[in-house]
Order: sequence, then structure tokens, then C-alpha cells
Amino acid sequence: MLKAYKGNILFTKTKDAFTIYEKGFVIVRDGYVERVTDKIDNINVDEIVDYGDRLIIPGFIDLHFHAPQFPNLGLGLDKELLPWLTDYTFPEEAKFSDLDYAKKVYSVVARTLLMNGTTRVVLFSSLHKESTGLLMDLINDVGIGAYVGKVNMDRNSPDYLIESTEDSLIKTEEIIKEYKDKYDLVKPIITPRFVPTCTSELMQGLSKLAKKYDLPIQTHISENTGEVEWVKELYPNSKSYANVYDDFDLLTEKTVLAHCVHNTDEEITLMSEKNVFAAHCPNANYNLSSGIMPVRKFMEKGVKVGLGTDVGAGHKVSIANVMSQAIQASKIKWLELNKEFSPLNTAEAFYLGTKGGGEFFGKVGSFEEGFEFDALIINDESLGEKDGRTLEERLQRFIYIGDDRNIENVYVKGNKIK
Amino acid sequence: MLKAYKGNILFTKTKDAFTIYEKGFVIVRDGYVERVTDKIDNINVDEIVDYGDRLIIPGFIDLHFHAPQFPNLGLGLDKELLPWLTDYTFPEEAKFSDLDYAKKVYSVVARTLLMNGTTRVVLFSSLHKESTGLLMDLINDVGIGAYVGKVNMDRNSPDYLIESTEDSLIKTEEIIKEYKDKYDLVKPIITPRFVPTCTSELMQGLSKLAKKYDLPIQTHISENTGEVEWVKELYPNSKSYANVYDDFDLLTEKTVLAHCVHNTDEEITLMSEKNVFAAHCPNANYNLSSGIMPVRKFMEKGVKVGLGTDVGAGHKVSIANVMSQAIQASKIKWLELNKEFSPLNTAEAFYLGTKGGGEFFGKVGSFEEGFEFDALIINDESLGEKDGRTLEERLQRFIYIGDDRNIENVYVKGNKIK
Repeated sequence: MLKAYKGNILFTKTKDAFTIYEKGFVIVRDGYVERVTDKIDNINVDEIVDYGDRLIIPGFIDLHFHAPQFPNLGLGLDKELLPWLTDYTFPEEAKFSDLDYAKKVYSVVARTLLMNGTTRVVLFSSLHKESTGLLMDLINDVGIGAYVGKVNMDRNSPDYLIESTEDSLIKTEEIIKEYKDKYDLVKPIITPRFVPTCTSELMQGLSKLAKKYDLPIQTHISENTGEVEWVKELYPNSKSYANVYDDFDLLTEKTVLAHCVHNTDEEITLMSEKNVFAAHCPNANYNLSSGIMPVRKFMEKGVKVGLGTDVGAGHKVSIANVMSQAIQASKIKWLELNKEFSPLNTAEAFYLGTKGGGEFFGKVGSFEEGFEFDALIINDESLGEKDGRTLEERLQRFIYIGDDRNIENVYVKGNKIK
Repeated sequence: MLKAYKGNILFTKTKDAFTIYEKGFVIVRDGYVERVTDKIDNINVDEIVDYGDRLIIPGFIDLHFHAPQFPNLGLGLDKELLPWLTDYTFPEEAKFSDLDYAKKVYSVVARTLLMNGTTRVVLFSSLHKESTGLLMDLINDVGIGAYVGKVNMDRNSPDYLIESTEDSLIKTEEIIKEYKDKYDLVKPIITPRFVPTCTSELMQGLSKLAKKYDLPIQTHISENTGEVEWVKELYPNSKSYANVYDDFDLLTEKTVLAHCVHNTDEEITLMSEKNVFAAHCPNANYNLSSGIMPVRKFMEKGVKVGLGTDVGAGHKVSIANVMSQAIQASKIKWLELNKEFSPLNTAEAFYLGTKGGGEFFGKVGSFEEGFEFDALIINDESLGEKDGRTLEERLQRFIYIGDDRNIENVYVKGNKIK
């Protein structure tokens, strides 16, 4: 089946500029983009779907989202990371031993992601195997693509939310076996919570599982200065926080490290060499008083960067919101660092939230040839005059002032899921 | 008429804590709050309006909003203040010589403010007298309270958006005479744009008009370092930017100064002595790469502070959004200044966006005795579980993740306007 989607098409092949086709066509065969074109006179398509004056853009990619923290959205944000974990996060995550509770919450999580135009997401679940599986089922039901990780944590965690090293590894392998081939777009991911809650044995074991099953890895790094100090105390002989992960072979080209607020230049170089992804989560970093990731520095040093909502420390599910927050944060960072690293512009933030993060999923996040067709159909009638506005201005306006009401339809790998 | 509004009542008498009545009553006589109480057994009310489990909070107060910039919402935000003014703001403002255009835009402005729960607003119009009058009429039509200022600018402005000093003063006085007693809740305000666009003669003349008609004053100060330098060049003999305004007698206890990002300690002391209001506009200050106002420092030095959206440099009309952005900004400022000034908490941000700014309008922004009853009825059903959440948590959650859909009803001075 060859389909043509007609509308105002915007995407970012490279991070510095939008590629724009006014009243153009995305030609899609069996879920993959064949090309984008101004005219289809000479192409024999089976169906034309005409979205008129609407915007057609790639789906949003969220590289960092804690599904069980969703019920805490917008709560407890007068606290810093470590007390916030103790008072809000851990007690909430513990509830996911109850499958009924998990089903109730995760159904809403899946629907809310869809409503907000997130077509691919990298999810932390809790340490509970059963509810992690349920989360994968429910995400698959709505049609979004995802990596979903059962969280591993075998030390420095509350009594009611901890597991033995052995148990942690066994259950992780069980869930991998059960889910690695179950769905096309929803897959497991290795998920050590972060250094302080994982013993060396656990990290070693997880690294082996990642290799054995060729799986991606997600974890946190250098969100908060207190956390960085703690890691130094735990591993006084490691050169840095990033080196701890590297010592356990957890930095691969399919690793995503969330936050990266306080990394040293040496760590950034290491991340670049290891070709990992950094997930920039400005809302969470603001809310927990962590600081601002120097995104431009990471980009200049060649680290792959995407955006993350970091629900629940981040209070917004919308990656469009994270784009505008990332731009704002980069402007403050620019001032803080004596204008050394230029702020992000709109095209760059859009790139990070689509193609930048999309690379974690393969050829995702753009409308170039061979990319999976993940798309959002944006109706911006309610956002102001369109006459006299460029398409780039209309997209910028949607990013800054639009919301889920403007996202009329959602496609993932060619499937219309909304 | 004595009315009782029943629901979960939250407000901030003082900035450091919420005053909370679970399933309580606000007793209102002819638009003014008589008291808030847990029980009304012994009060003979004419009517009870029962809002069940909804939250009842004071209306939001916006101390800084440019009505003619509304069509630019979410646009041009890859620029700094001065190029943004030239490329986006001035050309848009010039369109308001056309009354039909003004009517179209200002009708939407009035409705959008109402939808977002803003019950009182301090508005910049453009320099055009007729459309400024129209703006006052349209704001009055929806029932919101406002100060609305015809903008004055007689130098350093584009040819197509400038007026002579004489013309500026004559038209300002004309509009004052026409509107000062026309409406109960919508009044004129003296509005020199900012020092660079106002000659000394103009500022002198405006100061006289403010005294003659006992009017409040609004202007901008120290948003951007380039602007601050420019003012120094224009008035090399003045001690500071704030002193320029003071030299022309424009700092009064009814003056609101927008931005205050780069003021010196001496200027803050002067503002405190003159008892002016500062309007904190974090979204705009981020968007135009201006910096972060040290709000805590202003509060500690006794300056009255409220919040402003600064539409259109600020992209959000919602003061709830500005509250969460102000908290985020204060956390970054706390880190920037080596943790000298503690971040704002939720109660403090709420105070700034209600009672803090409300003082500019008199007894507004709280439910204490004698306050005008401006209120929002918040339905937070869609925002997550209510069981097990405190009322303070539910309000915090609305501030962080709610939007106009949660604001079911709006009261201004006892009138139900939505």
C-alpha cells in the first residue's frame, strides 16, 4: 500500500533548520517513508489522505519517563531530589505491587502519552515484574512504541521497595524472555535505577544481560550535586560518575543517560566516545532545583541528545512543552556561562524532541527516506491568525502555546492510532 | 444580599502559608467578603451556592500584559529584546490604528483572560487612543477588572509608531477624561513605554497627569542589560535607571515596574522606599534571554511584588503557569547566587499571583474580610486521584498541570462572569 499524506510538512533533517513542504506530500509504503515531495502527479499512490492546511510533523520522542510516578504529577515540587524520592517517589512506586492499581494508572499513562503526541517513549517502570509486563501490554494496546524497563535496585532503598541482587537479575531475565519478541514496537530495556541504589554485582549482572540479549540500557547520571557526592563516596576509586557506569560496561551506543546536569568535561568526552544518548529533562531539573544541563556543550562534543519529560519530577507530559522549556533553560545557561554556548533555537529544540531522541529507536523522528512514519496532525486554528504567518512560525507557535487539543491525529509506523 | 459559597477554600493571607477551609463557606455581601467560616448554622444567608468538592481560590492577578502583542503569542522568541521589538512588536502594534482589527483582537484577549482565570489585569495598549478606549470597553464587557494604558512614546521609535510629545499628552488626557469614571472596574493608567522611548518632557507631562487625576503608573525597568546601558547613555547624570523615573516623579505607591531583572541593590532600596510594585515576568525574561529577577531579594527588601505574564514576550496567558515558572526560575537563581536567596515555594508563588499583585487594585486577591470577592471555581477531577491528597496538594497540582479546562466558574467583585 502506497499512501500519500497531504498537508504542510515540517521536519528537521539536521538540527539547525526545518525542512518545509507547503501543501506537500509524505509518501508512505507499509509504514515507512519513501519520500517527501511537492507534487505527486507522476506517483501512483493507492490513497491520498488530505489534511488540508494542517501541519504534519514527526511524532514526539520522550527519552525519559517514570510511568509509576505519573500519579505524583505536579506534587511535592517544593523539595530537592533525595527528600523528594523518600517522601513522594518511593512510596508511590511501592503501590505497583498491586496489579489492579497498576492497571488503573498505566491505562491513563498510555492514553495521556498518546494525547500529547508522544509516539515513542523510554519508560522506567517500578521494580515489580508483573506490573512492568502489564505496562508493556497497555502501551502496546494504544499503539505507541516504547522501551520499558523493570527497575533494578538492591541497596540504599527503603525496606518496602528493594530486592535482592539475585532476585533482581532473575526477574529481569524472566521479563526479557517473555517480552523481547512479544511486540513489534514495545521492547524491554535494562534499567539500573542509578549508582547509589545498585550494588556492583547487580550492575555487572545487568551488563551481562544487556550483552546476552542485545538490549539497550537506561539510567540516571549527575542530576544533583548531592547525588554526585554520594557516588564519589560509594566509588572513591572511580574517576567519575560516568566512569562507574563505564567500569561495569554499561555505556553503549544504546545507553540513555538521563539529566547530565553536572558532568565534567572529561565525562562528556567519555560519553561522546562511548556514543551514548543524553536525555535532557529541563522541567525536572528546574523542579528539583538541580540546575541546567549545558546542552550545547554536549552537542558540540558530539554526544547524541534527546529530550525527556522525566515524569513525575517533570510535571508536563508534553514534549512540545519540554522543547520550549529547553530553549528557555538554554538561554539562562548562555547568560550563566558568559555567553559561551549559544542558546537553542526552535529548530534545534524540535530536532532534539524528534530526530535527536528518535535515533534511539532506529530510523525514527524524521520524514527522510526509510524512516518509520510517526506523525502528528496539528490543527492550529485556535492558536491565532494563519494568514501572513510562515509555516515555521505556525509550528513555533504550536510548540509555545499549543496543547493536546491541537493534536488531531497520531500515526506510529504508519498506523493511525488516534 | 448575603451569599455563601461552599467548597474547599484556599487563599494566602500571608505569603508563607495557605489558609485552608475544607468544605467551608465564603460569606459574601454585595461583592465583598464578610468572612470565611467552617459552619454557617448561625448565619442567615440568602443563598448558598454549593461547589461540592471543588476548590475555591482567589482570582489571578496579572500585573503586566501587552494587549496588542497578543497576536504575536509564541512567535519570534529566538530573538532578544531590542531586535524582537523591531521585528515583531512594533509592526504588530502599528496595526491597532485600525479599529476593526483592534476589535477582533481585543475581543479574543478579553475572552482569553477570562478563560484563564485572570480577574484583574494591568494592560499596556498601543499608542492609539481610539483602540485603547475600545480595549477598555471590551474588557469591561466580559466583567474583568483592569487598568488600561494608552502607551506613550515620542522618541527612538519607528516612524510608523511614534507621536509628538504634545500629541501624546493631549490624547492621554482625553482618554483619562473619557474613561476615568466610565466603569467601576476598568480604569486608565499612565503608561510611559520605557525610558528610551520617552523624552524628559513627556515623562514630566505624564507625571503631572498622574498627579492631577490621581492615577496609577506602569512602565518597564531593567529587563535587559543592553537596555540598561542605553538608559545610562541617555541619562548619564542619573544615578540609575530607577532614579531616572524617580527624577520625573514617576515612582509612587501606585506605580508598577515590570521586569526588575538587573536592578542594583540601591535601586531596590529606592523602590522599597517609594513603595512601588514590581511585576515579575519569568516567561518573558526567559524567552528574550534577559535573565532571572531575584524575587526573594526584592521581597526581603520590602518591595511589593506581583506576577505578570508579559504577553507577548511571555507566551502564556495563564498566571497559574507563571506561578510554576516563577518557582522554577527562583530555584535556578538560588543555585546561581550560591544558595543565598531561598527559592519560592508554592504558597509564596500563589501569594504573588493573587494577593501580592491584588494589592495594586485595593483589597483584592484574598478572602479576608472586606476583600472584593474575585474567585475561581476549580474542578480538578481530570488531574488525578483526590483521595489521600491534601487540599494544598490538589491546588499545587492544579498550578503545575492544570489549565483553562479546570476553571469552571469565575467571579469578579461578586459577579459571576463565567
